[in-house]
Amino acid sequence: MTEPLPLTILSRDAQLLRSLLEARQLPGLRIDQCETAPAAISCSEVRLLLADPNLAAQIVPDCQHLRWCQSTWAGNTPLLSLSKRDYQLTGVKGIFGTQMREYVLAYLLYFSRNIATFNRQQRDTPPHWEEAPISRLAGQTLGILGAGSIASEVAPAARALGMKVIGMSRRGGEAHAFDAIYTPDQQHQFAGQCNALLNLLPDTPQTENLIDKALLSSLPDGAILINAGRGSAIVDDDLLDALNNGTLRAAVLDVFRQEPLPPTHPFWHHEAIYITSHTAAISRPEDVIEVFAANAKRFINDEPLHYVFDFERGY
Amino acid sequence: MTEPLPLTILSRDAQLLRSLLEARQLPGLRIDQCETAPAAISCSEVRLLLADPNLAAQIVPDCQHLRWCQSTWAGNTPLLSLSKRDYQLTGVKGIFGTQMREYVLAYLLYFSRNIATFNRQQRDTPPHWEEAPISRLAGQTLGILGAGSIASEVAPAARALGMKVIGMSRRGGEAHAFDAIYTPDQQHQFAGQCNALLNLLPDTPQTENLIDKALLSSLPDGAILINAGRGSAIVDDDLLDALNNGTLRAAVLDVFRQEPLPPTHPFWHHEAIYITSHTAAISRPEDVIEVFAANAKRFINDEPLHYVFDFERGY
Repeated sequence: MTEPLPLTILSRDAQLLRSLLEARQLPGLRIDQCETAPAAISCSEVRLLLADPNLAAQIVPDCQHLRWCQSTWAGNTPLLSLSKRDYQLTGVKGIFGTQMREYVLAYLLYFSRNIATFNRQQRDTPPHWEEAPISRLAGQTLGILGAGSIASEVAPAARALGMKVIGMSRRGGEAHAFDAIYTPDQQHQFAGQCNALLNLLPDTPQTENLIDKALLSSLPDGAILINAGRGSAIVDDDLLDALNNGTLRAAVLDVFRQEPLPPTHPFWHHEAIYITSHTAAISRPEDVIEVFAANAKRFINDEPLHYVFDFERGY
Repeated sequence: MTEPLPLTILSRDAQLLRSLLEARQLPGLRIDQCETAPAAISCSEVRLLLADPNLAAQIVPDCQHLRWCQSTWAGNTPLLSLSKRDYQLTGVKGIFGTQMREYVLAYLLYFSRNIATFNRQQRDTPPHWEEAPISRLAGQTLGILGAGSIASEVAPAARALGMKVIGMSRRGGEAHAFDAIYTPDQQHQFAGQCNALLNLLPDTPQTENLIDKALLSSLPDGAILINAGRGSAIVDDDLLDALNNGTLRAAVLDVFRQEPLPPTHPFWHHEAIYITSHTAAISRPEDVIEVFAANAKRFINDEPLHYVFDFERGY
């Protein structure tokens, strides 16, 4: 029998990850280090790493024996921006689609059913019995920037509610889930149809500032924007303009250029902006261990890992 | 050629209904009377009636030549409670499913995504960046009281979001849309599974006070109740008790024993009750004309009408 491989855990949730992992009795692995602080890690001992990427980025340059890092996040900008690239980096995927479709539909329906107005009428003195304007999602078009695994879990749910769903993607994508997929050079034609625009694109040089005045002004009046990709995709001032001139009815933002969003940022105080704290789709430790366990088995058996990041492409 | 049949329109939206009808150029009919007030109608001339049932109820007893009344509503308690029954009464159906599924999912997602808390955190001074408790609809169970046409349009949408959907019905129903259908004698077994309970039952003696202490106390703790059937289905005091003792997390109410809900009614002021003004699924005049036109063609051709009410059964 071969020696069990030593695993280093470095995460805010280190102890919980350890318990969940021990409960699974994963053969071929032993937990060697388990810490919440980068300073506590002995870098020369690190071979396999299960880690939050913001913490991992502080030790990875010194981990000369690192062979594989399983990140606990979907996005991995902290690690992808380092020069060290002689190891395999895998992310957490396949667990966000369910949460994302619920997040997106929750807000689209919140606006179309005008829940805010009914709540307000109820709190009036005296309370106010009146029809508020209600629209129907069925028949409207949802446009998704991105056509990857999360987008293709959002799309069928929106279609089950009678929406048309179109995607925009450089590389095509899982076309069966969409009514149509457009390329970036067809952006104007794409955006012109979107009653709701959802950004799910990762943080790459190509997606930076993608949601700018040109894109926003192509949308039909009264459209809704949801950004659950990366904050850098949005030109903040162009978004505020689009809200103030009526192009956009509302913007739902889960990601920002700086997080937490600074208390003085104008987004906090705009009445048509709805802010969530990067919680649209979160990896619970249970979900992370699920992905890690499957990958660890593959690693031990010398099989290709799931959800491997390409350092060149950046996703 | 036979003489066109005279049609009487009596509705709050009489003029709009007339315009929509004229735009369709329906052969075999001529609009004879078109009024918003019952007093303006010459009852002895009424043969075919397209009417709001609350207004129609004031003239129908005197319409001795009435052969068919197409109601503009889904529910027809005002007409069903009269002793006159020697005519065909048809309702508006088939247009509510889309709206109802959006209404129901809007509120279920509003609670599961905790939109109220994120909104509140944003309005705090200073604004508050924090994860709020979020749950997932996927994997939860929606129980529907009723298994008719509206319920079977709600069910597939909830299932597309990963919910289990069960129904309770005296007569079975469109079983393919549900994971299981229970009969009223299995009420305890049915209710015990329902993380969300949706009432879509019509107003009949059998459904009056159905949602009482016994039913509510069978629900899992923290369940959500949505009543979009009839107000009389709920024992008001039992509902308040269930909210106050934690059985229910929230109640979303669209229908009430008295409408508009009187300003002093305790429902208005309970923080876990969400009130909408009988707007979950409304018939727009466009929808009504769609149903009426199809039925008028059938009437002229002596074919069976759609959505005929049974005066005995009351639906």
